[in-house]
Amino acid sequence: MKTSVSEENLDSIKKKIANLSTDQLLIVVDSRVWQLYSKQLEEGLSSRKDHILFKAQEGENTKSFEEFNSGLEYFLEKGVHRGAHLIAIGGGATSDFGGFIAASILRGISWSVVPTTLLSMVDASIGGKTGINSKHGKNLIGAFHLPDNVWLDVNFLETLAPGEMDSGKGEIIKYAFLSETISALVKSEAPLKEIVQACALEKQKIVEDDFRELGARISLNLGHTFGHALEKIYDLSHGVAIFWGMALIFKVFDSAHLLENLRLFEKGVKADFGAPPWLNKTFPVDKIMDFVSKDKKRRKSENIEFVLIDEIGSSKTRLVGIEDCRERLEGMKDELRSFTF
Amino acid sequence: MKTSVSEENLDSIKKKIANLSTDQLLIVVDSRVWQLYSKQLEEGLSSRKDHILFKAQEGENTKSFEEFNSGLEYFLEKGVHRGAHLIAIGGGATSDFGGFIAASILRGISWSVVPTTLLSMVDASIGGKTGINSKHGKNLIGAFHLPDNVWLDVNFLETLAPGEMDSGKGEIIKYAFLSETISALVKSEAPLKEIVQACALEKQKIVEDDFRELGARISLNLGHTFGHALEKIYDLSHGVAIFWGMALIFKVFDSAHLLENLRLFEKGVKADFGAPPWLNKTFPVDKIMDFVSKDKKRRKSENIEFVLIDEIGSSKTRLVGIEDCRERLEGMKDELRSFTF
Repeated sequence: MKTSVSEENLDSIKKKIANLSTDQLLIVVDSRVWQLYSKQLEEGLSSRKDHILFKAQEGENTKSFEEFNSGLEYFLEKGVHRGAHLIAIGGGATSDFGGFIAASILRGISWSVVPTTLLSMVDASIGGKTGINSKHGKNLIGAFHLPDNVWLDVNFLETLAPGEMDSGKGEIIKYAFLSETISALVKSEAPLKEIVQACALEKQKIVEDDFRELGARISLNLGHTFGHALEKIYDLSHGVAIFWGMALIFKVFDSAHLLENLRLFEKGVKADFGAPPWLNKTFPVDKIMDFVSKDKKRRKSENIEFVLIDEIGSSKTRLVGIEDCRERLEGMKDELRSFTF
Repeated sequence: MKTSVSEENLDSIKKKIANLSTDQLLIVVDSRVWQLYSKQLEEGLSSRKDHILFKAQEGENTKSFEEFNSGLEYFLEKGVHRGAHLIAIGGGATSDFGGFIAASILRGISWSVVPTTLLSMVDASIGGKTGINSKHGKNLIGAFHLPDNVWLDVNFLETLAPGEMDSGKGEIIKYAFLSETISALVKSEAPLKEIVQACALEKQKIVEDDFRELGARISLNLGHTFGHALEKIYDLSHGVAIFWGMALIFKVFDSAHLLENLRLFEKGVKADFGAPPWLNKTFPVDKIMDFVSKDKKRRKSENIEFVLIDEIGSSKTRLVGIEDCRERLEGMKDELRSFTF
């Protein structure tokens, strides 16, 4: 099984949908996306008399157990059969949610994604991780279920909020560290369309090699260990948190020479993330370590597995004991308070 | 991935549990089974300080969305990690439910089953079909998720209600038609333990060849097309309904010579199913066709796919148009009213 990732526009997506070899199409669309694009999407679906539309709550709101239940019962009431195909249209939350419905309805039907946010174009829509949130944490309930198609149309980004654009750009910068090709594209300020396509293909390549996240896929966690903590502590968007997570890991694990690239890439994607959120505040070692330990517990390893960058295009992992990590941050606490770059 | 199916007793299961290479054990146990066996099971779990116990509602009651949510949140609250192993102890409903929790928690952890009903020993516990019920039908929400182990201990059957024994026996008779070996065991009135083991292995063999039910696994549906309808219409237990479903299909599709075997096998497993539920009543053609059409809709084929038996050990499928099927039943309506064997 393999996902086909392709660059499209609303016209070509319309054709792809018309040509899907199923006689029952389930559409899960983010409510906000529907508000903005209902006319075009209805036109796109006009060739399919057989479609059933479920409007999902906006963004992350849809990833609750109650919504999951509603979505499943909605489609089951309409008499879904095993040959049905589901299309999720929206950001990462919508594809997480829609993909988990596709995974669970009648024990699994095929599905495709039309990502409408930058973050989901380069990351969330690719790789088959689907799921919803638990009371006890994000994405703790779900399935690995690869979509057949990811149809990328950057025109959706025209209506994206600036904060969400930044979030996607943070993840793109991560890819620039993981791939020389993407690094070059970003540094040369290539059109966003090209960069998006390259990131999506890079993620697909990594995921194909390691579907269940047992090895290579871990490199995609670059910046995420600290990033997830920063996201919560400072209420940042995901990608922006990953940007600062990378800055922190480079600083703390002797890779300060990479900080310069961080700013170069930032410029390359036309973002301006300003100063670090911790600047001139007490550096929150305990809060960060709380998050990191919780994550460790989920993975059950004695150590924290950090992704580090040797040089652009080459990552490695480093196991650090949880107390070692705390001591290191504690020892740099004062320095970090004023750390910017 | 392959399931290991083995014949055990509480002592050997205890050892298997002690030797599981995980440091976190999730137990999903049917409440009634827990009532009857808590002492032995607690003893069996005494070697594992790391177990978390969830008592599932009795039987089919546990297969609701609410219970699924409760079970997941219960384990997540306790801090499940990806290396955890789940053991489902109970009948088919408990393993369906527990297996779907194992499939969905942290996007999937490994699991094992200790089936405690005859039906689940020979059928439900094997093959990785997991799931819960929708408002709109049974097992419509779920996942394919193979257990690592199925530990069979027929001693559990000592406390099984007679009706549930009959239900298991109905499924055993189905296997006797599908396999010469099982046919011989049943006819020779072999010990139940041997028959159970043979049925479980037969199912495992079929399922391995066809995990996602695209081909050979269909043979396991012998008796089920009409059986599911009879189960609902006459409020029969599953296996008993399958018994009458086979009788009906043999009668209606020119295989009346097999009816004699049905009674031989019935005797072989020491069951007595008496007279057909339709005897001397108006034969319920419309109700049966309602169920059959609904099933057809789920599978989306123009025809109904019946499993037929050529001779013991050899099955085939026959596609019958839905209207042809109705006409055939309608034409035999009077004859069926008095049909017994």
